[in-house]
Amino acid sequence: MFSFSELSKQFEEKFSQRHFPAAPATLYNAAEYILEIGGKRIRPVSVLMGNELFDEINPDAWQVATAIELFHNFSLIHDDIMDQAPLRRGLPTVHTKYGASTALLAGDVMFAQAYDYLTRINPAYIQKIIKLFNTTSKQVCEGQQLDMDFEQMKQVQFSAYESMIILKTSVLLAASLQLGAILGGAGDRNQHHIYEFGKNLGIAFQLQDDYLDAFGDPTKFGKQVGGDILANKKTFLLIHTLEVANTIQKEQIQVLLNSNDADKVSRMLQLYQDCKVDEWVKQLKEKYYQTALNHLEDIAVLSDRKKPLLELAQFLLVRDY
Amino acid sequence: MFSFSELSKQFEEKFSQRHFPAAPATLYNAAEYILEIGGKRIRPVSVLMGNELFDEINPDAWQVATAIELFHNFSLIHDDIMDQAPLRRGLPTVHTKYGASTALLAGDVMFAQAYDYLTRINPAYIQKIIKLFNTTSKQVCEGQQLDMDFEQMKQVQFSAYESMIILKTSVLLAASLQLGAILGGAGDRNQHHIYEFGKNLGIAFQLQDDYLDAFGDPTKFGKQVGGDILANKKTFLLIHTLEVANTIQKEQIQVLLNSNDADKVSRMLQLYQDCKVDEWVKQLKEKYYQTALNHLEDIAVLSDRKKPLLELAQFLLVRDY
Repeated sequence: MFSFSELSKQFEEKFSQRHFPAAPATLYNAAEYILEIGGKRIRPVSVLMGNELFDEINPDAWQVATAIELFHNFSLIHDDIMDQAPLRRGLPTVHTKYGASTALLAGDVMFAQAYDYLTRINPAYIQKIIKLFNTTSKQVCEGQQLDMDFEQMKQVQFSAYESMIILKTSVLLAASLQLGAILGGAGDRNQHHIYEFGKNLGIAFQLQDDYLDAFGDPTKFGKQVGGDILANKKTFLLIHTLEVANTIQKEQIQVLLNSNDADKVSRMLQLYQDCKVDEWVKQLKEKYYQTALNHLEDIAVLSDRKKPLLELAQFLLVRDY
Repeated sequence: MFSFSELSKQFEEKFSQRHFPAAPATLYNAAEYILEIGGKRIRPVSVLMGNELFDEINPDAWQVATAIELFHNFSLIHDDIMDQAPLRRGLPTVHTKYGASTALLAGDVMFAQAYDYLTRINPAYIQKIIKLFNTTSKQVCEGQQLDMDFEQMKQVQFSAYESMIILKTSVLLAASLQLGAILGGAGDRNQHHIYEFGKNLGIAFQLQDDYLDAFGDPTKFGKQVGGDILANKKTFLLIHTLEVANTIQKEQIQVLLNSNDADKVSRMLQLYQDCKVDEWVKQLKEKYYQTALNHLEDIAVLSDRKKPLLELAQFLLVRDY
């Protein structure tokens, strides 16, 4: 059994190769560029871990992990076009560097290439694997659309927002684990539990991310605190605050959303605290984290095999703040 | 055995249903919209015809035909974004009606849905079918990128232009026929010949399209003659003329490319005729058409089974002008 960081290193080594031909260079250099920017590779490593929970790593898991990482990068390229994001990990986004049309096509070709890796596996698994992959990829698109829809709305219901986050960020982690489990020979019940483990972990991670953006220690968090507030981004914090705030507080929030004053962040944080949203989000995160752990508990394999996934959960979530 | 128009009618009936869920409506209505605009459905019907050349239609052929039509529409949505095209078949393009971000996502989700139909077939065929589908979809992306690259270049070699056209327009027709042939149980040689039949037919069709845009009878052609010339579009005619023209003619072409004078079309047509490009393109089209027919001839099945494909070739190519 390998730990997350060991599998991460192994995956990085295998993944660090060209995935596309040389020509046309205008297209394929753009596709290779985002892969070179790197990332935490959490999703592909989850495929490997989902597999290893049940059995020794099936060689096909490397193909599926590669497909997942290509799919993830395809969605990043297209999301960045839609969000008009200038930077990713401190470097110019694909469309900034190569133009929107080439970025669009580089995403398309990366999506096709993901399926290419999926067809390299044992034919006995192909149908199951591609079905789950398809469902998930459509869900991720739906999540992105809902996110854009919500940005246009003044108020969004918490449950609707939560569903969007699940689609946009959690299902890919959940499916990655399940894809690995399928290749490890897991039965339906175990597949269900590992999927739910990943889904709940994903929501907990997003809650933590939103919390840290507002209340994190900037020296530990590594990015500007209050970035979401400055960008008027809808987050779990804002959505919930708008639901629990009194009339006066709601008005104050609307004023802040329309303002660019220097004290925008500090005044919004004060409102969050007045509404006890900081405590609420920590508790909600804890609830999802516990639900994730319960599903991990319910998987019918020896506890020892669950250790790496438990460590992953702790690595992702029990962060210092 | 069915004719093209019979299969076309049958396909249209089966295809005229929702392919996506109701929600999120912002995403899926955009996807359904382009499918309702319609089209000639040449590619999906080619899947059915490629199948029927070898055997009775395999029920899986309808799934693959649907996947091909979804893929084709995915590529149209994304191409229209890149080309900033306002209209398709006289109606607003998806991005004009629903915005570029939703159009981008609607394309993505349509691409995923194409794979969804592909996974519904007999697992024994899935790997072969998806492999060819993947290769083809990457080639179509490459063709679109090369087309954009060439638009930025002053002069493009004929062979490079021809390769681009093959990728952008011919391989999908060729692959559609081959996918059907695979489902009909065709051997490798026969698969090769039907692919080449489609590929050469596709090139011949594009040559004819370019010819008709310049020299077609406007009352029969159904669109404005000279549209490509007005848009400075690189076509077989322009590419070849730039290769065979003398120095003076080349200068005249450059002047025309930079002009928007009322006589731009008539003067360019005169240059084409002076360089005998009208005759050249007719002969080249005939050459590709004959090559296509030779490949059809070489397919080892009874001639009677080839009749519908021969009719399709004649329908597409021996048009009145």
